[in-house]
Order: sequence, then structure tokens, then C-alpha cells
Amino acid sequence: MFTAPMKVYALAATIVGLHMLILALWTGTVRTRKKVFVNPEDAKISNGTTAESDHPDVLRVKRAHQNLLENAIPFFGIGLLFAATNPSVNAARVYCFTFVGARLLHTVFYLLGKQPFRTLMFATGVLTTFGMAYHVLRAALG
Amino acid sequence: MFTAPMKVYALAATIVGLHMLILALWTGTVRTRKKVFVNPEDAKISNGTTAESDHPDVLRVKRAHQNLLENAIPFFGIGLLFAATNPSVNAARVYCFTFVGARLLHTVFYLLGKQPFRTLMFATGVLTTFGMAYHVLRAALG
Amino acid sequence: MFTAPMKVYALAATIVGLHMLILALWTGTVRTRKKVFVNPEDAKISNGTTAESDHPDVLRVKRAHQNLLENAIPFFGIGLLFAATNPSVNAARVYCFTFVGARLLHTVFYLLGKQPFRTLMFATGVLTTFGMAYHVLRAALG
Repeated sequence: MFTAPMKVYALAATIVGLHMLILALWTGTVRTRKKVFVNPEDAKISNGTTAESDHPDVLRVKRAHQNLLENAIPFFGIGLLFAATNPSVNAARVYCFTFVGARLLHTVFYLLGKQPFRTLMFATGVLTTFGMAYHVLRAALG
Repeated sequence: MFTAPMKVYALAATIVGLHMLILALWTGTVRTRKKVFVNPEDAKISNGTTAESDHPDVLRVKRAHQNLLENAIPFFGIGLLFAATNPSVNAARVYCFTFVGARLLHTVFYLLGKQPFRTLMFATGVLTTFGMAYHVLRAALG
Repeated sequence: MFTAPMKVYALAATIVGLHMLILALWTGTVRTRKKVFVNPEDAKISNGTTAESDHPDVLRVKRAHQNLLENAIPFFGIGLLFAATNPSVNAARVYCFTFVGARLLHTVFYLLGKQPFRTLMFATGVLTTFGMAYHVLRAALG
């Protein structure tokens, strides 16, 4: 049902979507371990304490998660259109899998606090999205 | 123009999109009622006060909204691809409408501070997205 | 490869995606200039200081960025489906380019702190999305 480049995008987008959900679940896991909660109803059910903001370790996971959201939204929007321009399978693989790999490594480097590697992975993800945007613009304006 | 399962996804995605916009409008409504603003230009125009962060009631709406964003993005990405794999209408209905219902209830339970119901609805939404991801992966790798 | 209304959506969605990435890059630029960082590893690499939250100027860019995310997600989801209902090119242009223009101006007005212009642009973006949602619902339920 999918063209060959759409299969590549579908695989990549699904991995990015699952990556996002796993980070959401990880936020909850770290929060439950640290037992510091913003919502009083969560503190009550988990025998934890309430605070104005999450534990610093939770905030780090949330920043990694937020950065993924901010980059995944353009990827979902632009990547799908790129795959629909019927590019070569190799081009689709290079763009999509570089994006997926860069974002997975970005999360690892964020959680471990490793710089400048985290910023390099962020930049790689942005560049692949810019590349796909170029192809979509050519098809949309052509 | 839409296949039968795509109609189901289109209906579900539109409800999720509208749900998101209504929560954004609700954030602004609660903020204007509480008259506490982060932006000085907003405080001025509404005769309110400026603070470092929003009123706790506004922050609760924003957390509910943010949780919806985090789960809607994978749904938009994966759900569309799932509908494009041409599943049975019944499968599309079960996955998509369960997701929509779980997210609507999640918002209600978040705003009312009801646990463990909120977490159960979150988990239900994640599981339906995992289910759709399984079908997309099978089609993308098959 | 794209139908005429899909070309309009593809152009609009790519501009919105690039707008989002440019705001992400702008957040980093302002943060590096202000030399106040939340992550200790970032403060170290840039010879800056660490603080519990970002500099107020960075927080303003982040609020503009977050508002774009919250509105771009429904646009990506609903706008694509709208374009797939095969509307007239003129309808697609009016909806999509009004959304793009309103969001670009929203960012400008947010960064400059101009009210009520910012709220007007926000409302314009929401209304165009509601309009596209109406067409999708008609096609999905028809």
C-alpha cells in the first residue's frame, strides 16, 4: 500500500512516535522514583511530596522530551510530504534514518549531559529536515 | 475522497485537533479570569498583575494541554499511516475512537484532579498508539 | 505528484515547519547571548552561568515557540486532511496562507510584546483551522 520511499518514512515516523511515547513514560517513571509531584492528587496516590516544580532529574527528561517534540513536529509534517514527492529510496533512507538516529542520540546525550555532542545531534536533525523541506518546496512550487 | 478507514481517522484527528485548540482557548480564559499574567503587555491590556509564572489553575490547564500535545503528535503521525495501510473499518474505529475517548476523559480527569483515572486514560491512549504502530511497522517492513 | 490544493498545503506546512525550527534556533541564539543556562554542561561549554530557569528574553522566545507548536499540530493534522478532500485551490490558498501569515505575525508581535495584535493573530490562526476542520468533518461524515 505504501510506495518504497513512503515505507521508509513510515518506519522512521513510527520509531520517532514510539521514541516520544517512551520518553513520556520515562518522565513518569523518574517522577515516581523521586516521589516529588506537582499535582497533589499524584503525591497522595504515590505517598510522595508536593512541590512547585518537578525534581531536577525529571526536568531534564522533560527538556529532552520537549526538544524531541519541537523537532518531531516539523519532521512529521515535512517528512510525509517529502516521501509523497516520490524521491529515490536511497534519498529517503539517508534523510529519514539520519533524522531518527540523530534524535535517538540527542536523547542519550541529553540524559547523560554530554556536550557538544547533544548540540551536534540537534543540528543534524535540523539539517535533514531542511534538506527534505527543499525537496518539498521544489515539488510544491514546480 | 477518503477510504472508509481514512474517514475514521479524519474524524478522530479532527476531534483531537479541535480538543487541542479548545484547551488553548481555555488556558487563555482561565488566565484572564485569574488576572495573573507572565507577559507585562497582557497584564496591562487586562488590568491584571504580572508574575513570574501563571496562576496554579492556569498551570493545571497547561499541564493537561501539554500532555495532550505529547500524545497527539504520535497519534497524528502514526494514526495517519495506520489508516493508509487500509485496515478494516472496525479496527480503525476501535483504535481511533478509543484514543479520542481516552484523551477527552484524560483532560476531564486532569482538570478535576482525579487519580488513578487520569493515568488509566493516559495509558489507554498510549496502548492504542502502540497498537497502530504495530500495524504500520508490519506494512513498512513487509 | 501533488494535486493543486495539496501543493498549497505542502508550501504552507513547509513554511510553518521551517518557522518552528528557526524559532528553536533563535531560542539557542538568545540563550547563548544572555549566557544563562539551565543545563550545567551548557554553561560550562559557553562560559556562562547556571540558573533554575532561562533568562526572561529566552523565556519569551520559548513562549512564542510553544504557542506556535500548539497551533501548528492541529494545522498539520487537519490541514493535510483538508487538502486531501480536494477543495478548490482558492479555498486552500485562503485557509493555508492566512494561517501561515497569522502565525508569522503572531511570532513578530510576541517577540515585540505588541497587544492586542498578538491575540488577534492567534485568533485568526484558530479560526482558519476551525474552517478547515469543518470541511474535513463534512467529508468524513458524508
